[in-house]
Amino acid sequence: MDNASRYLEDFSVGMEFHSGPKLVSEADIIRYATEYDPQYYHLDPEAAKHSQFGQLIGSGLHTLSLSFRLFFDLDLWPKAIIASPGMNNLKWLLPLLPGDAISISAEITEVRPSRSKPDRGLVIMDHKTTNQRGEVILTVECLHMLRRRPEPAAGG
Amino acid sequence: MDNASRYLEDFSVGMEFHSGPKLVSEADIIRYATEYDPQYYHLDPEAAKHSQFGQLIGSGLHTLSLSFRLFFDLDLWPKAIIASPGMNNLKWLLPLLPGDAISISAEITEVRPSRSKPDRGLVIMDHKTTNQRGEVILTVECLHMLRRRPEPAAGG
Repeated sequence: MDNASRYLEDFSVGMEFHSGPKLVSEADIIRYATEYDPQYYHLDPEAAKHSQFGQLIGSGLHTLSLSFRLFFDLDLWPKAIIASPGMNNLKWLLPLLPGDAISISAEITEVRPSRSKPDRGLVIMDHKTTNQRGEVILTVECLHMLRRRPEPAAGG
Repeated sequence: MDNASRYLEDFSVGMEFHSGPKLVSEADIIRYATEYDPQYYHLDPEAAKHSQFGQLIGSGLHTLSLSFRLFFDLDLWPKAIIASPGMNNLKWLLPLLPGDAISISAEITEVRPSRSKPDRGLVIMDHKTTNQRGEVILTVECLHMLRRRPEPAAGG
């Protein structure tokens, strides 16, 4: 089945999806931080040596943004996606470091058809971001609202 | 008290902090989406007219990134901050639209000194992002780990 044919009915608890790795440079970290999180330990490699981290680290929101770029690139449900209404239990476990190659995995923990809207339902997934040393640096539960498969038009 | 003198002891439940507004352009939305969330309704104003939203909207992670830029610019605790270990109950309530001017507020709901590490503790805040129409577009609870005020050196 190609991804564009997938609807809510095609996803079930326990399915797992994995991305390839993405290399993150010092310049990438500084560019995100300049626009969205200009704390000195995300911006200035020299000053960051005197921070609690002892070196430049990526913004936690940069880790999150990159993690979902990797997830969206999987393009799991191009026609079914309605929106992602929220996230729960986001944990930043370890910092993103310059030169890290991060990858993500996402496992479905629940598929919940809507009670009020019969054309849709929620897929709930545990997302995990891992660096090239095999360390998990971020975990989060994310909700995705998907369309159910449209009824075929009645034949004549 | 200037912000650089603030430690965990200077924050208490019920304190609220507010940012000024930040204008978000269509170009801002497309730039974020190009790098982090390249779904067509964040990237292509023409194609987005045929999406469920009927127009271009910002990525939810863009709304989140901008919200925390506004929060970090308040610079509430430049010397006390250790890290932000996580977030809970993130809800995207309404989309970010081109031309919106968003602002944030953050209210402290809990201050919890660490049991295991006497030099630090958690501040837990309810964050809220509002557009220029007074609509709340995002809510999230965020945890921030702060240093306690250092003991003064013993006199001689």
